[in-house]
Amino acid sequence: MQKVRMGMVGGGPDAFIGAVHRMAANLDGKIQLVCGAFSRDPAKSQQMSSQLGIDAQRCYASYQAMFDAEARLPADERMEFVAIVTPNHLHFDVARQALQAGFHVLCDKPATLNLTEAQLLADVKQRSGRLYALTHTYTGYPMVVAARQLVVSGQLGKIRKVAVEYHQGWLADLSGDSGKQAAWRLDPAQAGSSCCMADIGVHAANLAEFICDDHIAELSADISASGNRQLDDDGVVMLRFAGGARGMLSASQIAVGEENNLRIRVYGEKASLDWSQESPNSLKLMHADKPFETLRAATPTAAALGGITRTPPGHPEGYLEAFANLYCQFAEQVSQARQQHPDIHSLLPGINEALRGMAFIETVVTASSSQQKWHKVPDVSNLSGQGGQA
Amino acid sequence: MQKVRMGMVGGGPDAFIGAVHRMAANLDGKIQLVCGAFSRDPAKSQQMSSQLGIDAQRCYASYQAMFDAEARLPADERMEFVAIVTPNHLHFDVARQALQAGFHVLCDKPATLNLTEAQLLADVKQRSGRLYALTHTYTGYPMVVAARQLVVSGQLGKIRKVAVEYHQGWLADLSGDSGKQAAWRLDPAQAGSSCCMADIGVHAANLAEFICDDHIAELSADISASGNRQLDDDGVVMLRFAGGARGMLSASQIAVGEENNLRIRVYGEKASLDWSQESPNSLKLMHADKPFETLRAATPTAAALGGITRTPPGHPEGYLEAFANLYCQFAEQVSQARQQHPDIHSLLPGINEALRGMAFIETVVTASSSQQKWHKVPDVSNLSGQGGQA
Amino acid sequence: MQKVRMGMVGGGPDAFIGAVHRMAANLDGKIQLVCGAFSRDPAKSQQMSSQLGIDAQRCYASYQAMFDAEARLPADERMEFVAIVTPNHLHFDVARQALQAGFHVLCDKPATLNLTEAQLLADVKQRSGRLYALTHTYTGYPMVVAARQLVVSGQLGKIRKVAVEYHQGWLADLSGDSGKQAAWRLDPAQAGSSCCMADIGVHAANLAEFICDDHIAELSADISASGNRQLDDDGVVMLRFAGGARGMLSASQIAVGEENNLRIRVYGEKASLDWSQESPNSLKLMHADKPFETLRAATPTAAALGGITRTPPGHPEGYLEAFANLYCQFAEQVSQARQQHPDIHSLLPGINEALRGMAFIETVVTASSSQQKWHKVPDVSNLSGQGGQA
Amino acid sequence: MQKVRMGMVGGGPDAFIGAVHRMAANLDGKIQLVCGAFSRDPAKSQQMSSQLGIDAQRCYASYQAMFDAEARLPADERMEFVAIVTPNHLHFDVARQALQAGFHVLCDKPATLNLTEAQLLADVKQRSGRLYALTHTYTGYPMVVAARQLVVSGQLGKIRKVAVEYHQGWLADLSGDSGKQAAWRLDPAQAGSSCCMADIGVHAANLAEFICDDHIAELSADISASGNRQLDDDGVVMLRFAGGARGMLSASQIAVGEENNLRIRVYGEKASLDWSQESPNSLKLMHADKPFETLRAATPTAAALGGITRTPPGHPEGYLEAFANLYCQFAEQVSQARQQHPDIHSLLPGINEALRGMAFIETVVTASSSQQKWHKVPDVSNLSGQGGQA
Repeated sequence: MQKVRMGMVGGGPDAFIGAVHRMAANLDGKIQLVCGAFSRDPAKSQQMSSQLGIDAQRCYASYQAMFDAEARLPADERMEFVAIVTPNHLHFDVARQALQAGFHVLCDKPATLNLTEAQLLADVKQRSGRLYALTHTYTGYPMVVAARQLVVSGQLGKIRKVAVEYHQGWLADLSGDSGKQAAWRLDPAQAGSSCCMADIGVHAANLAEFICDDHIAELSADISASGNRQLDDDGVVMLRFAGGARGMLSASQIAVGEENNLRIRVYGEKASLDWSQESPNSLKLMHADKPFETLRAATPTAAALGGITRTPPGHPEGYLEAFANLYCQFAEQVSQARQQHPDIHSLLPGINEALRGMAFIETVVTASSSQQKWHKVPDVSNLSGQGGQA
Repeated sequence: MQKVRMGMVGGGPDAFIGAVHRMAANLDGKIQLVCGAFSRDPAKSQQMSSQLGIDAQRCYASYQAMFDAEARLPADERMEFVAIVTPNHLHFDVARQALQAGFHVLCDKPATLNLTEAQLLADVKQRSGRLYALTHTYTGYPMVVAARQLVVSGQLGKIRKVAVEYHQGWLADLSGDSGKQAAWRLDPAQAGSSCCMADIGVHAANLAEFICDDHIAELSADISASGNRQLDDDGVVMLRFAGGARGMLSASQIAVGEENNLRIRVYGEKASLDWSQESPNSLKLMHADKPFETLRAATPTAAALGGITRTPPGHPEGYLEAFANLYCQFAEQVSQARQQHPDIHSLLPGINEALRGMAFIETVVTASSSQQKWHKVPDVSNLSGQGGQA
Repeated sequence: MQKVRMGMVGGGPDAFIGAVHRMAANLDGKIQLVCGAFSRDPAKSQQMSSQLGIDAQRCYASYQAMFDAEARLPADERMEFVAIVTPNHLHFDVARQALQAGFHVLCDKPATLNLTEAQLLADVKQRSGRLYALTHTYTGYPMVVAARQLVVSGQLGKIRKVAVEYHQGWLADLSGDSGKQAAWRLDPAQAGSSCCMADIGVHAANLAEFICDDHIAELSADISASGNRQLDDDGVVMLRFAGGARGMLSASQIAVGEENNLRIRVYGEKASLDWSQESPNSLKLMHADKPFETLRAATPTAAALGGITRTPPGHPEGYLEAFANLYCQFAEQVSQARQQHPDIHSLLPGINEALRGMAFIETVVTASSSQQKWHKVPDVSNLSGQGGQA
Repeated sequence: MQKVRMGMVGGGPDAFIGAVHRMAANLDGKIQLVCGAFSRDPAKSQQMSSQLGIDAQRCYASYQAMFDAEARLPADERMEFVAIVTPNHLHFDVARQALQAGFHVLCDKPATLNLTEAQLLADVKQRSGRLYALTHTYTGYPMVVAARQLVVSGQLGKIRKVAVEYHQGWLADLSGDSGKQAAWRLDPAQAGSSCCMADIGVHAANLAEFICDDHIAELSADISASGNRQLDDDGVVMLRFAGGARGMLSASQIAVGEENNLRIRVYGEKASLDWSQESPNSLKLMHADKPFETLRAATPTAAALGGITRTPPGHPEGYLEAFANLYCQFAEQVSQARQQHPDIHSLLPGINEALRGMAFIETVVTASSSQQKWHKVPDVSNLSGQGGQA
């Protein structure tokens, strides 16, 4: 296929996640970065643009300017989708304007700052007829896709219990709160109503819903903030899924020594599974009456369950490949959308996941300060149809 | 020291836990089993007695008969303590009568069927001046003792978060409910108000309190029963410790494929630890600013933290050795008590742990059916002093 | 069954392995230690005897005196077998005299100091009609028995490759050579022609032969000694088995940080297996066309493959239990031998393993200093029939 | 920096390793693929070229044609280096012609079919003044670089023992010999004198030499071929390093179930290390007197030891990133070489590793069929200076 043309908003010289997005987009050679508004600082933006080998004329002073100018370019030349890697509080406006200008959008998580914005965005997206994807990266791992397929195909039986956790330790030291990565996450103005739950708890919730093909219907929560922090840096949530399973979710940014310990176990009536992000190429299956099995990425058995891999078994793929898998699928969708109205169904996280994520975060925050035990998570499915990419 | 003389109530030919107690008592050659009331069925009791090489005259028809007869034997001949390994609903009465007859008691967990019985027992114990120990086996593991010591000595800093779980899968299949091990555990008349929380959840709670040297002050719970079961087989508990730490506890007997997956992580302000019962000889330490460490049982570093070991590093010890460590310490206390009034302080779980365990179980059951989120766990410390063995 | 009566030679107050043997004998309650010659120092011997609760009259000044006196006791009272836990250079003479006096023998490894002695012992054993067992402890692990059964039953197909290693680090520091455990092992007068290969290399060789049910037919070796040591502390051996498999064996006592890292992998035409002594309750099975399997001790699948266990899956058993499994089997044989001539066949290591072990060690030492690549290992099977316990 | 311009020889539509090279080159956005001779079949070559978005005019019918044409392009437009991903028997000629035409070369392993060719190539390389790199991929892993740095800086003390292995199982089934990947590797005409040792054994040898900063001086070997195969599919090698360490190397392609199990352990006088390719982001350090440490990629401690990483700790990088690290370094060197004569020293494997690899393979093959135990590995250092990239 012809390379898909991407623009980028955010991702200047010091940005971390912008670089990750570019590597993910680069890896498979299917996407070409053709334009960008990398920074509010024009010098920095030009510096980035030059470093990336982008035509200086397509390095824009603002995202608004970029959408305007690109929209005026010939169809086979202009940017086809925009990757949004700005600070979080801008995600909503950039995405909205991009969609309204006719561009597909791939946005870093979270979609917006709150549920209200997410609902507005869902509305814009619906009317735009454009594609929207959200980088819930962990669903890009092939063994996560395999895990979901095992659940969906009934090999675990009815799901009874889910245990999911995402433990980090990088915010353990209160003296580091002024650091670049910490400062905005702990500032309600920039991060919204939650730090830990919004940053990583929502990944854990998304992972559980993705693998179980189910929704968290009710929850009870206890989140907390260390020292004088205004936002949570740790929390526990008891879960009840729409399908009847119970569960627990733990997220922490103060778990000293933990790196990115995202782990999920799903216990069904017939079998169970166990997956960890830090060892992503193995999926442990537990049975009642036979030995444990370890399903390994890229083996024929695993390949039959879906998921994208590039190397033979035992040559590990990791986080960037999982990220690239999202880009790969999105590029494929954009390419298909050249010919047709994009009513593409896929496993890519999209506007529904954006809505559910925001609903989860807000419910956790509300529930945690309440004396009432159970709180319903708003049902967002009626807003925007079903599937990841309706 | 002269061997300590033990009697046993329960532990007939088909009993599982009785055999475990005997192996634990045998291992170090410090204890001699001199009498027993192994079964209500006299033939079975005699069979067991003969198999164990016990003098036929000291195989008794009932525990009452045993306590009477042994009490009349010369002091240097009679049983010094009784190991109670009957079905749970008898624990209370056997222990009470043994204490009242002047014998020390080592009782399989749980101490009683409910908190009321436990309080009565604590009272009897207090007045008897006899020793009482409860086999919360997991506190016998040397790396658990080491973990506690690391916490107590401040090497982890103030504890912020505790994650403890005990997952089994052996009750996953509802069709097995009539099996010997399952039937009584799922019967309220024999097991009390809880199955899963009383059988293993309380072990998890005890382990957390032991390592953290702290008490669970408040909790919120969600327990559930599969199918038509009358008692819980799974549950999640959110914890708040008296010392300020938060936590979560998950226990399950329907986690298909899990064996005895008891694991605890304790996150402090300075460092964290991670221990699993199924790999009991390693203790993972996590630091903010240096590599993970794996502390191994029986190494000089570990030995300096306490705990009993018998073999060099890398020659694994396991569950029976942990169990034997409790027997070892108890035999030592009994031996010391020959000379003096037994006001021995040790890490052995005792009557306080019995009280706290019952308080935990009852609070979880109450909390789970309540719409109120937080429930205080009754403070039992005023009943019986402090320490494991006051 | 009636308890089996055991005597012990060696195992005084400071001895390590004597205590291990006693714990192994104690664990299952089937064996009673009735007499001993624990030390050349009568005071120490009496001290031990008293500590163990043995009748003072049956604490003997020498093993010769013990064999004489016990032989004169009534048949239902006298020691039935002797456990030999002396320094290695005495193993041969104690075992020979015990057999000649009509006692069964269970001897700590190695059986003798050299092959010549082993052949003499085999001859004595043959003529005595008594039982002889050698504590190649690792064959007592249930998953090792399971591994052998998988090979023997053909589930791995024809074996092609074996990789076995036993790495320790405790002799890494040359300054510790005068320590009690090190000194005699590095002294040719007390340890024979080899340190590392005789102490642990032979365990690795035995394990490979046991699991594969095959013999090492030829080998090439490179052993070495650090500093000024007279005996090897490290070595590598290339193996060719009688049945056609190739292999490698590595043994080291200078592998800094290693504890008792005995590991074996066996690769067959259809499947492979991987077992490690430090995680003894798991056996990894590798297949060409399906997920890895982890077979766990005490599960129904594992139990069907043989091996002795005492606790449910997930309650780990370890080194002492493996050791006790040898004692258990030996006690059973001794008990059977009360009624009949002991032509019992079992998996217990016996005189053949004694012969093969010595042949292995001597061939490695010879081969290492030779410029010729391959050296045949003497075939000892014609000396003493077949099976572990002929 | 300005993107580095790359051409590719080989890597047509069905090729596996060509795609890996392109992903590695893509990942960091520093390299642009500007031309290629992807296949002898012009249609396939054009198909690939078009798929990759390369100017049709720069898709060439042969590598000779490519070198000719590109050499005539302006200096700031023409290809700067060629990536060689043809079948192995062509590596030599393509590399030689490229160097002679003035292009830098990055060649897939092995450099040539035999040592003679490698020596000729070293000569051409020397006279050309061009850069040459060989993709011994595993040296690109950051924890391998860290391991080397720990050795070089003396933290392990003098190295005593090295255990390295590379076990695969994909050639276990003889019925698969006609498959595309298997057929040429087992054919002496295309693969040279060895299959297993040339394909993966040499990676293991390279890894050991890289980490230890030492050379294998002597070896003894036993390689074998299953069934009627003409080339080895398994083998064991005893090693002696120039610096005094001993070692063993095992390589296998018939180890059923193994994927790409490349593992190395290096035992020094003070400490030891353990690294596995399948879990590449952890490096285990073993000490004599303190707990094991696990050094994790991208942590500050690891970063201080060198190595390239792109993601925070706990977001795993894998094989493609290791591969990209070689490309990254090579692109940097090419960029530097624009300004100056390239006498760049780096850790990148180069012509010396090419020579040593061929010397290793040929010595193993010779040694295996010899009755003499030890065989010297030819010293190639006098041919081409020192360092990876002289």
